[in-house]
Amino acid sequence: MAHIIDHRFYKNSWGTPEMREVFDERQRFQRWLDIWAGLATVQAELGIVPQEAADEIVAKAKVENLDEDFIFEDLGRAGHTLVPVLRAFEKACGNGAGEWIHYGATTQDIQDTALSMEMRDAWAILLRNLLTLEKICLDKAKAYRDTTMVGRTHNQHGLPMTLGMKIASWAAEIRRDIERLKAMPERSFLLMMHGGVGTMAALGPQANEIVKRLGERFELTVPPVSWASARDGVAEFVSTLGIVAGTMGRIANEVYQLSRTEIGEMHEPMADTVVGSTTMPHKRNAVRSEFSGTMVRVVMNNVALALQSMIVTHERDASVWRLDWHTIPESSVMLDRVIGHMNTVIGGLAVNEARIAENLEMTQGAIMSEALMFRLSDALGKQSAHHVLHGVLMRAAETGTPYRQALQDAPELAGKFDDSEIAALLDYASYVGTAGDQVDATIAESERLSASDPAL
Amino acid sequence: MAHIIDHRFYKNSWGTPEMREVFDERQRFQRWLDIWAGLATVQAELGIVPQEAADEIVAKAKVENLDEDFIFEDLGRAGHTLVPVLRAFEKACGNGAGEWIHYGATTQDIQDTALSMEMRDAWAILLRNLLTLEKICLDKAKAYRDTTMVGRTHNQHGLPMTLGMKIASWAAEIRRDIERLKAMPERSFLLMMHGGVGTMAALGPQANEIVKRLGERFELTVPPVSWASARDGVAEFVSTLGIVAGTMGRIANEVYQLSRTEIGEMHEPMADTVVGSTTMPHKRNAVRSEFSGTMVRVVMNNVALALQSMIVTHERDASVWRLDWHTIPESSVMLDRVIGHMNTVIGGLAVNEARIAENLEMTQGAIMSEALMFRLSDALGKQSAHHVLHGVLMRAAETGTPYRQALQDAPELAGKFDDSEIAALLDYASYVGTAGDQVDATIAESERLSASDPAL
Amino acid sequence: MAHIIDHRFYKNSWGTPEMREVFDERQRFQRWLDIWAGLATVQAELGIVPQEAADEIVAKAKVENLDEDFIFEDLGRAGHTLVPVLRAFEKACGNGAGEWIHYGATTQDIQDTALSMEMRDAWAILLRNLLTLEKICLDKAKAYRDTTMVGRTHNQHGLPMTLGMKIASWAAEIRRDIERLKAMPERSFLLMMHGGVGTMAALGPQANEIVKRLGERFELTVPPVSWASARDGVAEFVSTLGIVAGTMGRIANEVYQLSRTEIGEMHEPMADTVVGSTTMPHKRNAVRSEFSGTMVRVVMNNVALALQSMIVTHERDASVWRLDWHTIPESSVMLDRVIGHMNTVIGGLAVNEARIAENLEMTQGAIMSEALMFRLSDALGKQSAHHVLHGVLMRAAETGTPYRQALQDAPELAGKFDDSEIAALLDYASYVGTAGDQVDATIAESERLSASDPAL
Amino acid sequence: MAHIIDHRFYKNSWGTPEMREVFDERQRFQRWLDIWAGLATVQAELGIVPQEAADEIVAKAKVENLDEDFIFEDLGRAGHTLVPVLRAFEKACGNGAGEWIHYGATTQDIQDTALSMEMRDAWAILLRNLLTLEKICLDKAKAYRDTTMVGRTHNQHGLPMTLGMKIASWAAEIRRDIERLKAMPERSFLLMMHGGVGTMAALGPQANEIVKRLGERFELTVPPVSWASARDGVAEFVSTLGIVAGTMGRIANEVYQLSRTEIGEMHEPMADTVVGSTTMPHKRNAVRSEFSGTMVRVVMNNVALALQSMIVTHERDASVWRLDWHTIPESSVMLDRVIGHMNTVIGGLAVNEARIAENLEMTQGAIMSEALMFRLSDALGKQSAHHVLHGVLMRAAETGTPYRQALQDAPELAGKFDDSEIAALLDYASYVGTAGDQVDATIAESERLSASDPAL
Repeated sequence: MAHIIDHRFYKNSWGTPEMREVFDERQRFQRWLDIWAGLATVQAELGIVPQEAADEIVAKAKVENLDEDFIFEDLGRAGHTLVPVLRAFEKACGNGAGEWIHYGATTQDIQDTALSMEMRDAWAILLRNLLTLEKICLDKAKAYRDTTMVGRTHNQHGLPMTLGMKIASWAAEIRRDIERLKAMPERSFLLMMHGGVGTMAALGPQANEIVKRLGERFELTVPPVSWASARDGVAEFVSTLGIVAGTMGRIANEVYQLSRTEIGEMHEPMADTVVGSTTMPHKRNAVRSEFSGTMVRVVMNNVALALQSMIVTHERDASVWRLDWHTIPESSVMLDRVIGHMNTVIGGLAVNEARIAENLEMTQGAIMSEALMFRLSDALGKQSAHHVLHGVLMRAAETGTPYRQALQDAPELAGKFDDSEIAALLDYASYVGTAGDQVDATIAESERLSASDPAL
Repeated sequence: MAHIIDHRFYKNSWGTPEMREVFDERQRFQRWLDIWAGLATVQAELGIVPQEAADEIVAKAKVENLDEDFIFEDLGRAGHTLVPVLRAFEKACGNGAGEWIHYGATTQDIQDTALSMEMRDAWAILLRNLLTLEKICLDKAKAYRDTTMVGRTHNQHGLPMTLGMKIASWAAEIRRDIERLKAMPERSFLLMMHGGVGTMAALGPQANEIVKRLGERFELTVPPVSWASARDGVAEFVSTLGIVAGTMGRIANEVYQLSRTEIGEMHEPMADTVVGSTTMPHKRNAVRSEFSGTMVRVVMNNVALALQSMIVTHERDASVWRLDWHTIPESSVMLDRVIGHMNTVIGGLAVNEARIAENLEMTQGAIMSEALMFRLSDALGKQSAHHVLHGVLMRAAETGTPYRQALQDAPELAGKFDDSEIAALLDYASYVGTAGDQVDATIAESERLSASDPAL
Repeated sequence: MAHIIDHRFYKNSWGTPEMREVFDERQRFQRWLDIWAGLATVQAELGIVPQEAADEIVAKAKVENLDEDFIFEDLGRAGHTLVPVLRAFEKACGNGAGEWIHYGATTQDIQDTALSMEMRDAWAILLRNLLTLEKICLDKAKAYRDTTMVGRTHNQHGLPMTLGMKIASWAAEIRRDIERLKAMPERSFLLMMHGGVGTMAALGPQANEIVKRLGERFELTVPPVSWASARDGVAEFVSTLGIVAGTMGRIANEVYQLSRTEIGEMHEPMADTVVGSTTMPHKRNAVRSEFSGTMVRVVMNNVALALQSMIVTHERDASVWRLDWHTIPESSVMLDRVIGHMNTVIGGLAVNEARIAENLEMTQGAIMSEALMFRLSDALGKQSAHHVLHGVLMRAAETGTPYRQALQDAPELAGKFDDSEIAALLDYASYVGTAGDQVDATIAESERLSASDPAL
Repeated sequence: MAHIIDHRFYKNSWGTPEMREVFDERQRFQRWLDIWAGLATVQAELGIVPQEAADEIVAKAKVENLDEDFIFEDLGRAGHTLVPVLRAFEKACGNGAGEWIHYGATTQDIQDTALSMEMRDAWAILLRNLLTLEKICLDKAKAYRDTTMVGRTHNQHGLPMTLGMKIASWAAEIRRDIERLKAMPERSFLLMMHGGVGTMAALGPQANEIVKRLGERFELTVPPVSWASARDGVAEFVSTLGIVAGTMGRIANEVYQLSRTEIGEMHEPMADTVVGSTTMPHKRNAVRSEFSGTMVRVVMNNVALALQSMIVTHERDASVWRLDWHTIPESSVMLDRVIGHMNTVIGGLAVNEARIAENLEMTQGAIMSEALMFRLSDALGKQSAHHVLHGVLMRAAETGTPYRQALQDAPELAGKFDDSEIAALLDYASYVGTAGDQVDATIAESERLSASDPAL
């Protein structure tokens, strides 16, 4: 295989079997058969197609009934994506039922309805796996609710925070992604049975009833007007996957950064048999997180294709819609792999509390300057506090004196605080503000919103 | 100016004054002042800041009170985006009130809350203008509900349809975009007052109450946990603008294509004074539509930046969030220009019904082959109909005979139809299926959904 | 398969067998074996590896010697892309030779050198096929050197030009693309044998000599410093493919537009067995051109990934380089398909000279207004000419009078021109400027530059 | 101003005055005047335009002669980008010279030739600043040629390397970028004077001579055939800027990462007056590097627009070429700012050799395992070495014993090495391979290639 998501040896690093199955070739043809069967069934109900023809069509609508050699041969002849399959299906049906297949439909009716089904199936998998990840994150946020660690801004140590709050921020973002996914079905999973230019003319006088029944049968929304030229629903699907990829990318990158040799606050779970490097046996690479960082870029980059696909010329334009056949499987397969990785990584996250504590102390108290400023304000008045503290801190920085020492030694502060008071002033855990509340609020918000989660 | 949206001469071709104003420099600083004033007010209510200090801060919170020369000078010195403005504001406040400004806040609290306000203001303008465009489209769809025209697929004439249905398809897509925009506020327009690493530690023990009150005051959502590192709401804003741009791009392209010299079915309204070309006076260019095609690409392409911005490292990361200062104004300003163009273009659309009728006839009946097939089926049986018709059509194509003639001449059909029956068989208007129903359904769907449109 | 370029039924619509083969799984492993064999050979020459070990390694370096079941099993165990293959190769080698494989090398040495080989092989195919396309275009440009047709700007008829010049503009762009490709090898096809962090430390004291010999052996450039973290050469490869895709996209779109029902000036060659539409038998879709328009978007969009890949952190960063495994095959496979399509389409282009002539006349002379202006200037003086002509043209436009008639009837011109002079004034073929010269210059420029074309 | 590169207060953070000036509004009009003056001059030489008219045109071709109020008024009226300026210029010229301006030219001739000039001027600035940066990097590479530091792969400590080699890798990439820029002029900086559809018909019989002389006069390449529809040269310009941005992004990111609190190996130079944070006085942010990381994303993302611009329909298509007015200034202005930042950052780089040494020791010798393996091989045989060492290292890792200690204590090695031998085995500086050679080779390669650098 030429593409990495199909690579015999590596495909499971770039995708999941479950998601690949959604887009498998045979699956695609099976969906077409299902749609043809559904159409014939409805048309028989309405007296358009003979009941026995519909019965035969339904009975034979299994991909294993298609003559693959015939399809291959006909593909070369017809240069058309659907006709060879249609002909093979006709061939499989007996008693002249074949001529009632695809009755009043056009190629893209079948292919786009199948596309909607694919998107919906992909969506259900992604949503289910995201819900699991949200739960994992909420559990971890709760477990580390009060684990004080350094917060970093611009790659520099900033102020204390808690690990629970960091993880809650992932959970809250995942929940917003879940809400985005939940909003999508009625705009993105649409029935198409609108014929050549969207008028349904070939469906005859009962056209509206046919599409209504098909919508119910396939659980797809029937839009008020044909969407053959209106691909916004597809664009929303792909761009929502892009946003979810962004969320996953942030989490993966965070683990990847915090597992640096110099930081070492967390590590991916790693089996003993895993080889980190062919030449450097000491390494503990964050393989899944690093790799996820690769794949999310593809998923995000595909959004541009989906947006370009919206600029359809006239009533149908393969130069843009056919991009769906490339973009949707690729994005879905890679994103599912990434979500799976994150489930493994966060689910089995090895948190190194010793390193967390060590790193908190790395600036020897300097990350408490804001806290000190506010606390000294109460004792000294705000302006003086700032003035005094600035002098102390600058001296500490220039001489490399730890803050604790510098505060004890400062003549400006002499007699103002005893050692235990200074220790309290520099207690990191005392300056994490509402970090714990934010964890609790995130859990509560998830509970509130999950009431409307769909059954999957 | 170096950027085209600010170009002295061309800026109104690439943007609108109303939207530029949202992102104007002075406006930005005014928002910062408003936020500082709001913060001081709430902190005074809660007894944190002296009431008279808050009063002074509120009284002086007008951008005209800032000493611009001082800001310029300080920018060079401090190398910081907010500090010079803060210092200028402190300078403007008397009675020591200055030291209570920005109390417990960090830079990005002010800048990101202002960003939320900017997005919300941009959103309101875009939504208002889209609602207008939807209405225009629905009116036009109704007006041309039954105007038969050729539908085109793959750039070839396909089947008859109606102009009303074509325009309804724009309206339905715009309505879905409106629904996307309506879903956005609670995820995208968020308060930020969470301090250095998001813990709100510097706000003190009443932190939760402060942010709650600020959220109400500014009508911004307070998320359960700090969003300094979670930029999904911004990404949703920018990518929804990208989707709207896709919709506008489709409409603009359609007008641009249908106004080709060879098609001539519609034209933009054009003032007499407009110059089409310096050397070719006969041309009637679709200037606004063509130009809109340019701008929507920028808006769609910016989505990639917003998605990349989601991959924030640690608690704050300017290498990504600062992209917002580039992306959000650029996308908003160009998109508003495009929506404005479409309002003008569709509102004043010159439909050439004579050319529409002429073009329908261009293939001399061949676009009715599907209709003929179905109709002859009734008379001859499906298989025979196909066989007979195929022969007739092929002969017609080879000899260049119009269909009408070919049907009259066909020995296979001799005696089966008289001339008026043949004329009826080839009546384009009789084969537009549910086109009219689809117009009606689009109008009804818009009415249903507009019940929940926000007041703007 | 999940990805469309590997799809059992459609892969030849989205790629070519020749290019897929470059990136085939077995091919990839074979390259790794070749590199290991080359390394051992050079190391034996330099006395580092025992000659008999090298001989064994070379003898066994065939992909069919690898135990695939073992590789699959080990992949699951090791979680590493290369180690299982290395182990399988060690297993295949007798006499302890296995421990001399990969001696002093690191994973990415093998994988990136193989990547360079893949890019070079892909490059050779693309270049060869582009050279063919250039030749086809030059031949067509010559054949239609003086075929007058209408030139269109902003989708409106502009002035006369020639079909030869239009096609020459494709050829000239293709030639520039060829020059871009020719410039690439020394920056993009690079040897990597630099070890873990690029110092070549594990290669020992003869490291420089080893890489020099490997560079010669594999015909890859040895850069002055390790490129493990410097991926600009890869980015240049992918972005040059993006530019070539842009060229192909322009040609494909031009054919697609000019084959519109309303224009009909050219058509793709089409076999009789091809099915245009399941419901509209009269259609003559430009299938290859339309489809090419799909694929070039993917190739262009992949450039963003390659550029992002350049931002490598530290000495090696899989989160970006691994994108190459996705991007390079995908872009190469689709682009080769597109170039192949263009070779077919332009090689067999059906030019409809009758429609070309008809379309020239569509504005009834108005496209000659510029010519008339200049010609009347000579007779009447420039200002007067403009004034007179403007009046005549406006009257013609308002009344729908053909230009020829309007000029004959104009009282302002009475007695100034006889009918044959007016006919000459309106002779389209007389107003194509240097169109023919431009064709000739394009051919000459290609000849000049092709002197340095590489043998492929 | 709405766009950040024009923002009154922040524009110098997002651009440089020198580059903004290239794209300034008045500059643009001045270029148009220069082109009109050049055209009239050449046409006078060839007897087409009266000499006195040309003299007047040349004399008045200064932007200060244009009546700006008139231009503004006419813009509203004409809805055309060039005509108002042309009319204002005509108005400025006396003696009827005005009617000889723009003689035989079309709008895009003037605008695209000006575009070529803008690109060339931007190119010269970027190239000059890159050459400076290359020199700075080479000097630094030389200065730190033998400064041993840890090399990092996958964010983990890997093996020792040198700082000089790291910086040499930047220099070598910059040199390749310089070569890319050097290759560009003949394909990207092109004259356009080809008229409405590119035939030069309006230039009359001396057309070829006119464009030849203009090419020489403006030092722009005359392509063999009109490039109005062939925008590959523009795409190459923008995508090469994208590649340069990638290079800058890598360097900026490396400084940003290595200045982390936990790493601290290098810092940007920082003036005392710079404010790091409004609330965290201890921070030393890598402001320029972080900000550069923002801007390079925009420059890279703009490549997609330039590639899309290549798909021109027919002979001229504003929906794509007008993107140039957005993309080229934006990319040039931001990229120049980034290169300037890197010149400052690398030129004034504060290297913390103490932290570098400390970090080398962080894994207590483990980064020497590869070296140990090879060295013990000599003493013990390869297989045994691996076996023995693996045991020792695993025990060291489990018990947290430093390598030095573990080797001394290992019973397997008892009596094999004395302490000084063990110290030598673990000497980081002894295991940097050809790092120094690679620095030297990079300098030599730059010297070789710089022989063909253009004078700027």
